[in-house]
Amino acid sequence: METEAFAGCGPLLRPADAAQKPLRQLVFEHLRAHGQLPRVQVAKDLGVSPASVTTITSELIESALLEEVQTPRQADTGRGRPAVALRVRPGAHHVIGIKLSDRRHTAVIADLSGQVVASAAAQREIRPLSRAQLLDDVEALMRDVCAEAGLTPGDLCGMGLGIPGFIDGETRTVLWSPILQGRDTEIASALARRLGMPVEIDNDANLLTLAELWFGVGRTISDFAVVTIEQGVGMGFVINQRLYRGARGVGMELGHAKVHLDGALCRCGQRGCLEAYVADYALVREARTALNLPDMEDRSVSVLLEGLLRQAKSGNPAAHSIFRRAGRYLALALANVSNLFDPELIILSGERMRYDYLYANETLREMNTMTLDTGRKPPKVEIHAWGDMVWARGAAALALQSLTEQMLGSARDVAAQ
Amino acid sequence: METEAFAGCGPLLRPADAAQKPLRQLVFEHLRAHGQLPRVQVAKDLGVSPASVTTITSELIESALLEEVQTPRQADTGRGRPAVALRVRPGAHHVIGIKLSDRRHTAVIADLSGQVVASAAAQREIRPLSRAQLLDDVEALMRDVCAEAGLTPGDLCGMGLGIPGFIDGETRTVLWSPILQGRDTEIASALARRLGMPVEIDNDANLLTLAELWFGVGRTISDFAVVTIEQGVGMGFVINQRLYRGARGVGMELGHAKVHLDGALCRCGQRGCLEAYVADYALVREARTALNLPDMEDRSVSVLLEGLLRQAKSGNPAAHSIFRRAGRYLALALANVSNLFDPELIILSGERMRYDYLYANETLREMNTMTLDTGRKPPKVEIHAWGDMVWARGAAALALQSLTEQMLGSARDVAAQ
Repeated sequence: METEAFAGCGPLLRPADAAQKPLRQLVFEHLRAHGQLPRVQVAKDLGVSPASVTTITSELIESALLEEVQTPRQADTGRGRPAVALRVRPGAHHVIGIKLSDRRHTAVIADLSGQVVASAAAQREIRPLSRAQLLDDVEALMRDVCAEAGLTPGDLCGMGLGIPGFIDGETRTVLWSPILQGRDTEIASALARRLGMPVEIDNDANLLTLAELWFGVGRTISDFAVVTIEQGVGMGFVINQRLYRGARGVGMELGHAKVHLDGALCRCGQRGCLEAYVADYALVREARTALNLPDMEDRSVSVLLEGLLRQAKSGNPAAHSIFRRAGRYLALALANVSNLFDPELIILSGERMRYDYLYANETLREMNTMTLDTGRKPPKVEIHAWGDMVWARGAAALALQSLTEQMLGSARDVAAQ
Repeated sequence: METEAFAGCGPLLRPADAAQKPLRQLVFEHLRAHGQLPRVQVAKDLGVSPASVTTITSELIESALLEEVQTPRQADTGRGRPAVALRVRPGAHHVIGIKLSDRRHTAVIADLSGQVVASAAAQREIRPLSRAQLLDDVEALMRDVCAEAGLTPGDLCGMGLGIPGFIDGETRTVLWSPILQGRDTEIASALARRLGMPVEIDNDANLLTLAELWFGVGRTISDFAVVTIEQGVGMGFVINQRLYRGARGVGMELGHAKVHLDGALCRCGQRGCLEAYVADYALVREARTALNLPDMEDRSVSVLLEGLLRQAKSGNPAAHSIFRRAGRYLALALANVSNLFDPELIILSGERMRYDYLYANETLREMNTMTLDTGRKPPKVEIHAWGDMVWARGAAALALQSLTEQMLGSARDVAAQ
C-alpha cells in the first residue's frame, strides 16, 4: 500500500500527485493480471461499487477489449446457473517485444492479455553495431516473428525494445550500450517512423524485472530486486508494484557499484565495479592465467568459461579462486542491496545462473553475514534462470503498458474534456 | 510526478492504490508548504475547481485550522482591493519533536504551520540507556521545553521522536540503537500512555531528511539523498516527495553498506562497513596510533579528533592518511548512492560536516570518478551543517504529519461513511 511503503509523505504535493489512473484502466489491468474474474470480485478487489464496474466493463466489452466467459458452477454446491466472468479479449491487439544482445537477438509477439503467440531469434557476431545496422536488425527480426505468427507488421500496435547499457527512458535515448557504437543515440523515434508503430525502449534488466512483475513473483510480492548476470551485471527494482529506475531514470546500476577501492578495471573505464569481478569478461581475463593459456590463443568465451568451471570443480586452486572471488564480491553487492533497499526477495537471473558457483550456499551464507542484523530475517534469494524469451516478453509488457495507457489512461481523459 | 518517477507500473494494483488523500488534506498541506496563497492559486496548483477549494477552505476556517490574511494590493497596478490569502492558523495546535542522541538530547515545540516556538536541550553521559531511563529522559525534556514555550504537556497534540539505530516505524519498535540497552524495545506506546499523546518514532537520519523535505530543499526538489555523518553514518532518501525507508522499512543503512570485503571492524559486529572507516569511533581508534598516544590515556573523542585534524593540517602524514582514507571510502559510498539511486542532489549533513576533510574537493572529485559516466551531470553535492535543532524539527514534522492525517486524512473518511 502506497501509504505504508512511503509513510513519510511531505507537504509539497505536486498537482499530478492528486491525479490517478482512471477506473477503467484499473479494471482492465486487474483483469489482465488475474486472468478472469467475476464483476463482483473486481469491484471487491478494487474497493468500488459493483455498479461502476458494470458500467465500465460494458464499455470495454463494447470496445472489444474485454469478453465474457462462462465459468463452471460452484464446486461446493453444484447448484445455481453458471457464473459469468470477464477476461481480456486475447486476440484484440498484438504487440512485439525484442531483446537485443551481443550474441543473439530475440523477439516475441504477445496478445493483449500478455500471452506469447510467436517467437523468433537471430544469432549475430559479437561486435558493436552501427545505428543503421541496429535499426536493420530490429526490422528483420520483426519480419521474422510476424511471419511466425501469421501477422503483418501492420497488425502490431506497438513495440517494446530492451537494450543492455544506460538507457534514458524519458528521452528514449541510448546513452551508452556495449552493443552500439557511439553515445547518446536516438533510436526509438527512428524505429517508430520506419515501422509505423509506437516504440518504447528500456534497459534490458528493467524489462526482465517487468516480466517478473507482470507474469512472475510480482503477482504476489510488491517489492523485490532482480539482479541479472550475463555478459554484464544488471539490476531492476520494484517498489510498491512499480519499476523504479532511480530519480533521474538511470539508476540501479549495480554492475557499476564499486565493491573495491582502486579495484579491477571495468569495461566502463572505472575501477572496482562489481562487473569487473563477476561478468564474463572479468572471469575470462583471469581464466587464461589459471588455465595457463597463451594470450593470443583464440577460444570463444563460453569454451573458456566451461573449461575454467571444469578445472575449478576438479580441484585446480587457481580456477577455483576465480569463482570464489566472484562469488564473494557478488555476496557483498547483494548484501548492500539488502542494506539499502531492505527487500523481501532478491531474484538472481540471467544466463550465468546456470553455473552454480555464483549462488552456491557459501555465497548466500556470506551475503547474510554482510547483511545488517536488524533481528529480522534476511531477504529470500531465488534463482530464476530464464531464457532470453522471458526478457523479450518483458519488452512486450512494456509495449502493452504503453498501449493500455494510450487506450484507457488519463491521456484519454484530457482529450475527452 | 508519480507516473514519471515510476514509469513501469505493473498490472496487479492493490485496492489501496486506487485510494488517495482527501482533497481537504491536499489543500491544507499545500498551504502549509507555501505559507500563504489565495484560494484561486490553490485551485490552480492542485488542478481542481475554485468552487471545491472554497467549500473545503470554509470548512477548515470553521474548524480553526486555516485563517484568512490580507495581502497588499498588487504592486504592478497599485489598484484594486487588497487580496485575501489563506494560511495555516499557527496557534491552533502544537506538537513536540525530540532527537535523542548519545551526547545531547534536543527538543522543539512547533505550531501547526511547522514553525518552532521553543527549544530545549539536555546534556547526558555517553552510555546506553535502560528503557526506563530513556522514558524518563524524554519526559523530563518534554517538561523543560513546555516550560520554555509557556505550555503544559496537555496542550500538545503529539510527539515525534528520532532515535539513532534500526527503527521499525510500522511496529514502532527500536530494533537496535547505540543509545539503548537490549534489542526489540517498544517505546512509542509506553510513551504515549505515560504522556497522554500520540507518539511516532523513526530513525534520526530519516527525520533530518523529513526536515529537508518540509522546510529545506524538498520545497523545490522531489528526489534527493541526505547522508549524515556523526557518531555513526546515516542516510535518508526522498523519492517523489516521499521519504523512502526501504521495502520492509529498515533500509537506507548506508553506514553499514560494505565498502571493503573483510575490511575494518564495525561496531555492528560486521567488517568493511562505511562507518568503520568514517565514523568518530573509526577515526579515534587510529588516532591513538597516529598521535602516538598510550591506549589507556583518557581523552574525550572530540579532543582526540581536534588533535588529529590539527596534526593532519600541519603535515603529519599518518594523521593525514586517516582523513584521506575516510574521505576516499566516503567518496566510494556516495558514488554508489549515485550509481544506484541516480539522485539530482546529495546533501551531506551532521556534526562532522564542520570538518572539511570529508568534503574536500578531492573527495568530491573522487566521488565523480567513481560515478557511472552516463554522459549527464553527476549529482550536485551540498553541505548542510545543521545543528541538532533541525533534527528535532524533523521529529516535530513527523508528529505534524501524523496529526494532519488524523484530522484530515482518509481515516476520517472511513469514520464518516
